[in-house]
Amino acid sequence: MRIGVFDSGFGGLTVLRALLEHVPEADYVYLGDTARLPYGAKSRETVARYAVSSARFLVAEDAEFLVIACNTASALALDAIRESVAVPVLGVVETGASAADASSRTRDVLVIATAATVESHAYAAACEQRGMRAIEKACPLLVPLVEEGWIDHRVTAEVLRIYMDELMEEARRKALNPDTLVLGCTHYPLLRRHIEEAVPETVRVIDSAEVTARAVAKRLGLSGREVSAKTRFFATDSVSKFRSLGSRFLGQEIAEVKLVDLEKQPVAGSRELGAGR
Amino acid sequence: MRIGVFDSGFGGLTVLRALLEHVPEADYVYLGDTARLPYGAKSRETVARYAVSSARFLVAEDAEFLVIACNTASALALDAIRESVAVPVLGVVETGASAADASSRTRDVLVIATAATVESHAYAAACEQRGMRAIEKACPLLVPLVEEGWIDHRVTAEVLRIYMDELMEEARRKALNPDTLVLGCTHYPLLRRHIEEAVPETVRVIDSAEVTARAVAKRLGLSGREVSAKTRFFATDSVSKFRSLGSRFLGQEIAEVKLVDLEKQPVAGSRELGAGR
Repeated sequence: MRIGVFDSGFGGLTVLRALLEHVPEADYVYLGDTARLPYGAKSRETVARYAVSSARFLVAEDAEFLVIACNTASALALDAIRESVAVPVLGVVETGASAADASSRTRDVLVIATAATVESHAYAAACEQRGMRAIEKACPLLVPLVEEGWIDHRVTAEVLRIYMDELMEEARRKALNPDTLVLGCTHYPLLRRHIEEAVPETVRVIDSAEVTARAVAKRLGLSGREVSAKTRFFATDSVSKFRSLGSRFLGQEIAEVKLVDLEKQPVAGSRELGAGR
Repeated sequence: MRIGVFDSGFGGLTVLRALLEHVPEADYVYLGDTARLPYGAKSRETVARYAVSSARFLVAEDAEFLVIACNTASALALDAIRESVAVPVLGVVETGASAADASSRTRDVLVIATAATVESHAYAAACEQRGMRAIEKACPLLVPLVEEGWIDHRVTAEVLRIYMDELMEEARRKALNPDTLVLGCTHYPLLRRHIEEAVPETVRVIDSAEVTARAVAKRLGLSGREVSAKTRFFATDSVSKFRSLGSRFLGQEIAEVKLVDLEKQPVAGSRELGAGR
């Protein structure tokens, strides 16, 4: 089984990291669309166009199952992706909402994400389908803070305190009693400890990377016993930056990354690369 | 005279704003490559590809003179742009360095900019050509803070204090005596007052938008008397976002923005749009 994992950049490597742990017998092909990141502030049409070309690339690389590890692409473009490829597609928004469903007793949940994910209200819709009420909040400074490397930094703690206070204040205003917070962006797990410190103890934090990997394992019915995972990495921008920054998200060294151009003749380009592997 | 102004997004509107003041008799066509922003963390090859297609679009829209208002594109792709179009091209890096040249007595200058601009060392090279020493510092959190609207915010003041302290510390370590600080990113003029508060009083802050507009006026020898400026706006992503966020940078209402796709058949696409105006 070859699983394609797609993200606009490096954040999806936290999902791949969890997949390698929970589904170690699969092969992986990861694509970070780093030339066009971030998706988080772009329109639905643009995100869909980028995500569809990325999904097609992964299928051309023989992926038999796609994990859309990018929250923004899952929120804005999952239907467009499913229409454009013939393999099963799983997005982190649905797995995050399902995990909240399993966790929440009060049926009130909080979601933090990028501006585009929040504006799509994809998490609110997925929570409502499962009989929960959700408050979504955009936290646009968290990704740049993580990428600046300010993980354990007083400025990050202060920004998180401001964002989480605003979120809890909105919950009070709407008379909600949330007991679950979904991290709706793959960068946020790196801030998990500080996020947990900034919310009341009664709120459980859900990392969509972890729950997505569990959902894939369950869906594919793989045993987790045979370990022979081969992983290949592709990026649309600087492969050296992908290697150095990506290793922080993956939690292990990334040896080789291949450059791919999705703007010029996407399929032909991917076949060329595919032939060379 | 029709002047084309290019930026990866909205920041270049601070340059257009200064141009409208200093060269009011020209017509303008502005392109924000918002679908592919930000350029600031991307590689030279990717930035050059994007900037060249954008410059060609503006020339197809009958621009007779190009102002590259994007510091990253000026730093990484000015030669590539000049090779690809037949009209004169002025970039904000050279105008910023020239303004520093006119301002600095100690011949030691500071530059703050995006990661890509700093890594290119374009400002350092331009300063060295003019007999000055420069220290360049990447400040990747400032653009997201401006876009979050946290202009007068204690977190922004704290981030600026950290960045400026690091910059002055590096100057001390290298035994430089800087008297000039160039704002090497078009978002930074919105933080000008707070930047001035975070550096010693002896350091003069130079806004490249203002000095670029003066350079264009001098270069074109226009009188500034007849006022008949018509301005058209193009963006590669959401035109509604361009209108709302862009007005903050331009300092006036933006009535109409046209959407353009530079990835599919860029020249044909621009002609189609051109025919429709």
